[in-house]
Amino acid sequence: MAMDESLQIPTGVTTPATVVLSDRLEHNLAAMARTAAAAGASLRPHAKTHKCRELAARQLGHGARGLSVATVGEAEILSDPGHGLEPTADDVFIAYPLWPADDLVGRLRDLTNQAVVRVGVDSSAAIEQLAPLAGSLGVMIEVDCGLSRSGVRPEGVAEIAQTAMRAGLDVAGVFTFPGHSYAPGAASAAARDEARALAEADTSLASVGLRDLERSGGSTPTASLAEPGTLTELRPGVYVFNDAQQVELGTVSREHVALVVVATVVSRPEPGRVVLDSGSKVLGSDRPSWTSGHGLLVGWPEARVTGLWEHHAVVTLNGGSGPGLGEKVAVIPNHVCTAVNLVPELLIASDGEIVDRWSVAARAANR
Amino acid sequence: MAMDESLQIPTGVTTPATVVLSDRLEHNLAAMARTAAAAGASLRPHAKTHKCRELAARQLGHGARGLSVATVGEAEILSDPGHGLEPTADDVFIAYPLWPADDLVGRLRDLTNQAVVRVGVDSSAAIEQLAPLAGSLGVMIEVDCGLSRSGVRPEGVAEIAQTAMRAGLDVAGVFTFPGHSYAPGAASAAARDEARALAEADTSLASVGLRDLERSGGSTPTASLAEPGTLTELRPGVYVFNDAQQVELGTVSREHVALVVVATVVSRPEPGRVVLDSGSKVLGSDRPSWTSGHGLLVGWPEARVTGLWEHHAVVTLNGGSGPGLGEKVAVIPNHVCTAVNLVPELLIASDGEIVDRWSVAARAANR
Repeated sequence: MAMDESLQIPTGVTTPATVVLSDRLEHNLAAMARTAAAAGASLRPHAKTHKCRELAARQLGHGARGLSVATVGEAEILSDPGHGLEPTADDVFIAYPLWPADDLVGRLRDLTNQAVVRVGVDSSAAIEQLAPLAGSLGVMIEVDCGLSRSGVRPEGVAEIAQTAMRAGLDVAGVFTFPGHSYAPGAASAAARDEARALAEADTSLASVGLRDLERSGGSTPTASLAEPGTLTELRPGVYVFNDAQQVELGTVSREHVALVVVATVVSRPEPGRVVLDSGSKVLGSDRPSWTSGHGLLVGWPEARVTGLWEHHAVVTLNGGSGPGLGEKVAVIPNHVCTAVNLVPELLIASDGEIVDRWSVAARAANR
Repeated sequence: MAMDESLQIPTGVTTPATVVLSDRLEHNLAAMARTAAAAGASLRPHAKTHKCRELAARQLGHGARGLSVATVGEAEILSDPGHGLEPTADDVFIAYPLWPADDLVGRLRDLTNQAVVRVGVDSSAAIEQLAPLAGSLGVMIEVDCGLSRSGVRPEGVAEIAQTAMRAGLDVAGVFTFPGHSYAPGAASAAARDEARALAEADTSLASVGLRDLERSGGSTPTASLAEPGTLTELRPGVYVFNDAQQVELGTVSREHVALVVVATVVSRPEPGRVVLDSGSKVLGSDRPSWTSGHGLLVGWPEARVTGLWEHHAVVTLNGGSGPGLGEKVAVIPNHVCTAVNLVPELLIASDGEIVDRWSVAARAANR
């Protein structure tokens, strides 16, 4: 029996419920701290995965230098010194090519009063919008290392850096996201692309006199593949919980999945098929083409969530008797970041009991 | 120029924002009321789409007999007489095969004090759990008309009905969801499947002496295809707003889409590709294989959201200049039910201004 099959459904949980397995979480936090140390990089975990102040404090307690976030709203909430959790996140990087219009420049200014703040940029136009924050804000220039999302080519970094210098903004370095690591067998090549793009961007910065700056990268699939010296900081997010995608990519094994959705079998319409009350409004709908379904079932290694509606998860058992009507099971969501954002709180389980509840404080902080 | 291209981005909106176009909403409400009348059926719209008390009141104002909901929580919130909106939803159908364990039987009992309540069942075992509510609760037996999700075959209805009668529960009728209408060209066949399955289930009920009961069906793609007399009530949900799925299925045209996500172009990394700040945490990730992307852009009919991450929507323009860096655009999400559930409130727009805000009161009410 695989280790994950021994998972105990915590007593008293009504379904669907999003449950964190405390021991596994601690393991994952410690393991990534070691991974970053081995790569000679600082760890700046991406907090969009969990959005919880309690978990941010634990990451900092494990030695993280600060947090990565996706939005100004996440930064405001997670670095708020008033929430009383120690350590406080007083160093945040908004790892996103922000378009700083409307209220955002003012909010960034306020944010610099409670934390050291860096923001991503990938255009000179964005730099010009940020000019009023000269002297209080660092910018990180985004490089596209192969994902074809946002970011400039490495050789385009110098021009943006010069615009920033003219505007009086501090150029803190370059960053990239090797998200093309999210496909079977793709992680090693993505990690090489990441290292090469950051090195080339660093060379581009040197051409305008900027040396020894930040080279920030990392995703959960590539974190352990970073060659020492190639990155100065790592920004993985998913590793705290892991998910079905990471299991199917081979990044981790099932026993390192630290978040599950506890669900009830509400229907068994025919042998080989059961229906759970964990639909897309709690599991999330992310399903890349290379995944085997919409999620995995703990204890039923052959089972797959093959159909997903808002409140129905149809599970194909692929052999085995499967759970009975009314039985509670643990589902591993495909993509934990979107699953967490769907619920107001996470239930924290230890030894089969719910011992705490964490507010998903930055839930839906999309701006 | 297509009508939808004239859509005005409301002034003062910061992005991403989920915006309801009030005039289009009113059109959709009135049109579905006419559709139900033409089919000789009552309208019991599914409120999981919008989760808003204000919109439930509007549906009832347009003659809906009551609401369909997916969970006890949605029923509790939307039928709460204390919220002061008229008319109140005092007749709710939880159109889901509930497994009535833990707190649910007690909550259903409380709910019957504020509304007429029916719940879905698809097993005799669920009926037995509901027995304590005999005399105060109606049950609707779910039939599978071809979706292969939950529900029994039509001929299996009699056995469950007998269990209900023995338990003293009122059998209110049968229901089905023709969700296999969600594929190109599939709606007509799904509507026929629905009518046939409900007729056969009705015959099965008659075999145990139950006649002239409810035959409840309907989805947005099939609603206008219901032959008069085949259904006693229609339960469409999406029609209030519509979405990219409905446009691509041909159910409606773009000018009947009443909800958009207003987004900003944050990056234009190369000609033909722009990046918006409306990622999966605001658009939702639902993407059936037959859709052309993750969403449509108002005013750019050839454009498609071809890549979606939590805070990045990558748009392929497929010709045309596309919106510029910093420009605001309106995105039509693929599946509006999951998009609405991602935000705490909807902004209500009329004549290019935000005139109201509606709380997504039953957001994440997954139990």
